[in-house]
Amino acid sequence: MKPVVAILMGSDSDRTMMEEGAKILEQFGISCDVKVLSAHRSPKLVTEYVANAEKNGTKVFICGAGGAAHLAGVVAAQTILPVIGVPMESALGGVDSFVSTLQMPAGVPVATVAIGKTGAKNAAYLAIEILALSDSKLREKLREHKVEMEKAVREKNK
Amino acid sequence: MKPVVAILMGSDSDRTMMEEGAKILEQFGISCDVKVLSAHRSPKLVTEYVANAEKNGTKVFICGAGGAAHLAGVVAAQTILPVIGVPMESALGGVDSFVSTLQMPAGVPVATVAIGKTGAKNAAYLAIEILALSDSKLREKLREHKVEMEKAVREKNK
Amino acid sequence: MKPVVAILMGSDSDRTMMEEGAKILEQFGISCDVKVLSAHRSPKLVTEYVANAEKNGTKVFICGAGGAAHLAGVVAAQTILPVIGVPMESALGGVDSFVSTLQMPAGVPVATVAIGKTGAKNAAYLAIEILALSDSKLREKLREHKVEMEKAVREKNK
Amino acid sequence: MKPVVAILMGSDSDRTMMEEGAKILEQFGISCDVKVLSAHRSPKLVTEYVANAEKNGTKVFICGAGGAAHLAGVVAAQTILPVIGVPMESALGGVDSFVSTLQMPAGVPVATVAIGKTGAKNAAYLAIEILALSDSKLREKLREHKVEMEKAVREKNK
Amino acid sequence: MKPVVAILMGSDSDRTMMEEGAKILEQFGISCDVKVLSAHRSPKLVTEYVANAEKNGTKVFICGAGGAAHLAGVVAAQTILPVIGVPMESALGGVDSFVSTLQMPAGVPVATVAIGKTGAKNAAYLAIEILALSDSKLREKLREHKVEMEKAVREKNK
Amino acid sequence: MKPVVAILMGSDSDRTMMEEGAKILEQFGISCDVKVLSAHRSPKLVTEYVANAEKNGTKVFICGAGGAAHLAGVVAAQTILPVIGVPMESALGGVDSFVSTLQMPAGVPVATVAIGKTGAKNAAYLAIEILALSDSKLREKLREHKVEMEKAVREKNK
Amino acid sequence: MKPVVAILMGSDSDRTMMEEGAKILEQFGISCDVKVLSAHRSPKLVTEYVANAEKNGTKVFICGAGGAAHLAGVVAAQTILPVIGVPMESALGGVDSFVSTLQMPAGVPVATVAIGKTGAKNAAYLAIEILALSDSKLREKLREHKVEMEKAVREKNK
Amino acid sequence: MKPVVAILMGSDSDRTMMEEGAKILEQFGISCDVKVLSAHRSPKLVTEYVANAEKNGTKVFICGAGGAAHLAGVVAAQTILPVIGVPMESALGGVDSFVSTLQMPAGVPVATVAIGKTGAKNAAYLAIEILALSDSKLREKLREHKVEMEKAVREKNK
Repeated sequence: MKPVVAILMGSDSDRTMMEEGAKILEQFGISCDVKVLSAHRSPKLVTEYVANAEKNGTKVFICGAGGAAHLAGVVAAQTILPVIGVPMESALGGVDSFVSTLQMPAGVPVATVAIGKTGAKNAAYLAIEILALSDSKLREKLREHKVEMEKAVREKNK
Repeated sequence: MKPVVAILMGSDSDRTMMEEGAKILEQFGISCDVKVLSAHRSPKLVTEYVANAEKNGTKVFICGAGGAAHLAGVVAAQTILPVIGVPMESALGGVDSFVSTLQMPAGVPVATVAIGKTGAKNAAYLAIEILALSDSKLREKLREHKVEMEKAVREKNK
Repeated sequence: MKPVVAILMGSDSDRTMMEEGAKILEQFGISCDVKVLSAHRSPKLVTEYVANAEKNGTKVFICGAGGAAHLAGVVAAQTILPVIGVPMESALGGVDSFVSTLQMPAGVPVATVAIGKTGAKNAAYLAIEILALSDSKLREKLREHKVEMEKAVREKNK
Repeated sequence: MKPVVAILMGSDSDRTMMEEGAKILEQFGISCDVKVLSAHRSPKLVTEYVANAEKNGTKVFICGAGGAAHLAGVVAAQTILPVIGVPMESALGGVDSFVSTLQMPAGVPVATVAIGKTGAKNAAYLAIEILALSDSKLREKLREHKVEMEKAVREKNK
Repeated sequence: MKPVVAILMGSDSDRTMMEEGAKILEQFGISCDVKVLSAHRSPKLVTEYVANAEKNGTKVFICGAGGAAHLAGVVAAQTILPVIGVPMESALGGVDSFVSTLQMPAGVPVATVAIGKTGAKNAAYLAIEILALSDSKLREKLREHKVEMEKAVREKNK
Repeated sequence: MKPVVAILMGSDSDRTMMEEGAKILEQFGISCDVKVLSAHRSPKLVTEYVANAEKNGTKVFICGAGGAAHLAGVVAAQTILPVIGVPMESALGGVDSFVSTLQMPAGVPVATVAIGKTGAKNAAYLAIEILALSDSKLREKLREHKVEMEKAVREKNK
Repeated sequence: MKPVVAILMGSDSDRTMMEEGAKILEQFGISCDVKVLSAHRSPKLVTEYVANAEKNGTKVFICGAGGAAHLAGVVAAQTILPVIGVPMESALGGVDSFVSTLQMPAGVPVATVAIGKTGAKNAAYLAIEILALSDSKLREKLREHKVEMEKAVREKNK
Repeated sequence: MKPVVAILMGSDSDRTMMEEGAKILEQFGISCDVKVLSAHRSPKLVTEYVANAEKNGTKVFICGAGGAAHLAGVVAAQTILPVIGVPMESALGGVDSFVSTLQMPAGVPVATVAIGKTGAKNAAYLAIEILALSDSKLREKLREHKVEMEKAVREKNK
């Protein structure tokens, strides 16, 4: 099965975090490809990857990076597919990561989500919401997930 | 034509900014509905709007708000459609607006874009990228737009 | 005894902190109800809870939440009772939590207190000060508490 | 009519802002006393004022101050009445004002509201919510105000 | 020997830090009094202490406090002696502590030093520099200390 | 009359601000020398100035600088006299100025005061408090000034 | 004359600022090429430019960009020449610009200078210092410039 | 072999970090001198060192310092050689360190790199890039290093 979502990350040290998103995609039956691809240490690999991914049917990019987090922006510069940016935690608490992911110029958006593990998960949920627009089964699963979340809260108070 | 994108904003004072996004959607031939709907001063209207929008074929929400910017999060809590948050400029430079838009808990993502006018535009581009996943004409227009942006840069240097 | 104060929190992980406030209310003989209620994962439960609480005699809401901390604001949007917001510690040191609690628009105030455990306690003290306005015994206890605090300082220096 | 709310401010330059709150109290028929009283330049006057206010039936303090904003905290140290702090805008965007208002130690709470004019207004609304707990007419007016806010939003979209 | 320097701190938990300064004063042969005195929990004790200290020959106040750090400002409001403020570390990294110590209004200065242990030490050195203005032996010791610091650096590189 | 206080500033553009302090010193009858001396563009002049000032009876240095504000620290490194640092306003609101003035290492204190004009004034008041320790007339004037400040507040409320 | 320094900027709106640097290079007799080249809107043009520049004898890159300022990092990823990054002022005061320029991963440095106009100038001075390492005439000019800066300070005090 | 790069640091506690840079220089065959030299505790030693280094053929300075990090600026004030500043981590997450390194006035640039260990490494890489401008073997090694970095990324994904 060709991957529908590409999960890229700037460094191997981001892998544990970013795989939180991969697990959620798997639970929703969405295939994904997880790769370490640095915008700074391997810019050509990023360019190659993005070009191939588009051809092979990737529909959404999820890019996790920290510090001067350029990966999401560099991918967004080279594709017309939606790019979701996950700012990794950093020495500055992730502030550097998220402003360098968020503050993109007009015409080249990055859909930024929360810092760290929460963001890695929410990138997956956001990708699912996007894919669900043309997939009624996925929509059904998302609705169930919303019901489950509410139920879980209800359980906590019993 | 039923609106495909709903552009909501917390206050009438955000209108000039948010209409920057409406113009871009229009250029790409996407119908949208622009409404002032405060999560704090009119919570029921928000709930009604979200419920109706889903039924009437809205596919993407764009929510602009400033300060304790809860609108995008409150909408995201009530829908499984993608929600894009635009943090408005504020007394704190928009810092309050974007952290309260960005830092959503796992399971309820908001796709946050840049602060202010740039973000209002990028929310529209992001919505178009999302809608283009199942619309080849829109994809073509996005590709042309990317070529145009590069051309404009090239022109600047002549 | 019907709860006079409702202590709500966005996540089960906030419970230890928020129960610091419950203990203080108990010491002052004020009944309270402690519930996990997420504005994002269970918005309807929040709406139901607020509606019922008002009917059942709740007088003050204390809402603890972190990150994009919308709980206090969402409750404040639906009640005319005083709402006290406790910003939880977070990856950003609680900065996201307190600006998204504090920066509410005109007409929908949230009484924000300090970050974390200190805030959880002070939310209780603030609730007591509010309730004491129409309860002379409570006023007496507060005066004693103020005397005790001074005594404790005096003791430290012996 | 003896003032029920005391609006204090650290400097004459805060007056225009703080009077926004006085106007709202007036609209709700609540008497208030507006005074410039610096915690730093006139500490004894603050002590005198607080002692007298308590005796004369003041029920809520609203204290606006900027920079090293100590006024609310200094008042809170000397009273068991609820103290609402309004952080004024400053050279640092009001960040100094609100952290020095918000981060009070356990036992001496300050109910902090938004920065600047919005905060001055919300301090008044919060005071009204507090006073309404033992005043059914005031509750009625607050309910009407909430309905009005929603109506105003509805009007904006016509 | 009557204390020449008063070292005050807002909370017992600041004691280890603040005693770093006491040690340095002792090394320079300056008597000091170390007290826990909260501006918020014991405002009258602060007022009493400041009045007595002035009478008894105290020449410099050193005040350590964290969070909404009002102690130095409250002391400065009541004395014409130099007041040195030491911002304690806090949940916000000490940012709240130092802006609420530093940003005093015109006419009521606080000499703010670095956050935490370094500040506790430098408050002592600053007090010594101030006292040395009218004490030639102290000046001599300070000169020796400066030479020693340079020597220590020189040693590090051998 | 030999200057007792040296007011140094990193740039000519700081002069208007720093002269606010000179005026206050003049009102208290304290002679001062006002000089533009950049730690970065004229390090030798700074070294010469500090060496001469000590010999000629200067007792307190006031150093105003912005951005990477090193002037106060560089002066403090070369003298045992008290050095007061005034952080100038900057593109970053003065945050860069004050952390680079405040966060000095142990052994080399800088007495930091508020940002900008308020700080320029308070540097003067702090210098006066320091000089007043060995000058009873100055102490008297400071006491009168404190009384005047209180009176001014009292007048505001008439 | 082939350009020795390439001054690139992310947007035409940065031109006035960045030309401050061009003027300084000109004064030192260093040829430079000034181009608008967005890392996000024209990534291929950046790649082409960097490849050609290296072949044509460019020795230093100066890259100005604001917001999610990726230009310097993207250039650094593709060259082994020194890259100097100038963070432009932004809605967030330039904080986003400089952290996304500064916080590069190990192996791909960007020499970051001050925000805005000062940085644009200092980027030029830094480039000159670098080029002067193998150009004794340039070294002489830099020494003269240092003397001139000191002289200018001396003049200010006459 | 005379040192080509001088690695200076403000405190012995920075040594482990700064030696990361020394290792990299060694790998590239560049001699360096590592010294602890505080701008504040040993200003004369800094002046002496800089004067001698220039005479003895040092070409690049790398200066690591934390807090009010003046070392790089103080060195830059006394040399026309390129100065690279490494902001050390601090109680404020390194924010104080990097703004006091970065925000230098026009005419006296400091090439600032990332905070902490990453910065210590990148200072070395930047120095190598600078030295490689007149050393073709070094250029070759840098190109190999770039290839190696890409290869390492490629390996991670196998």
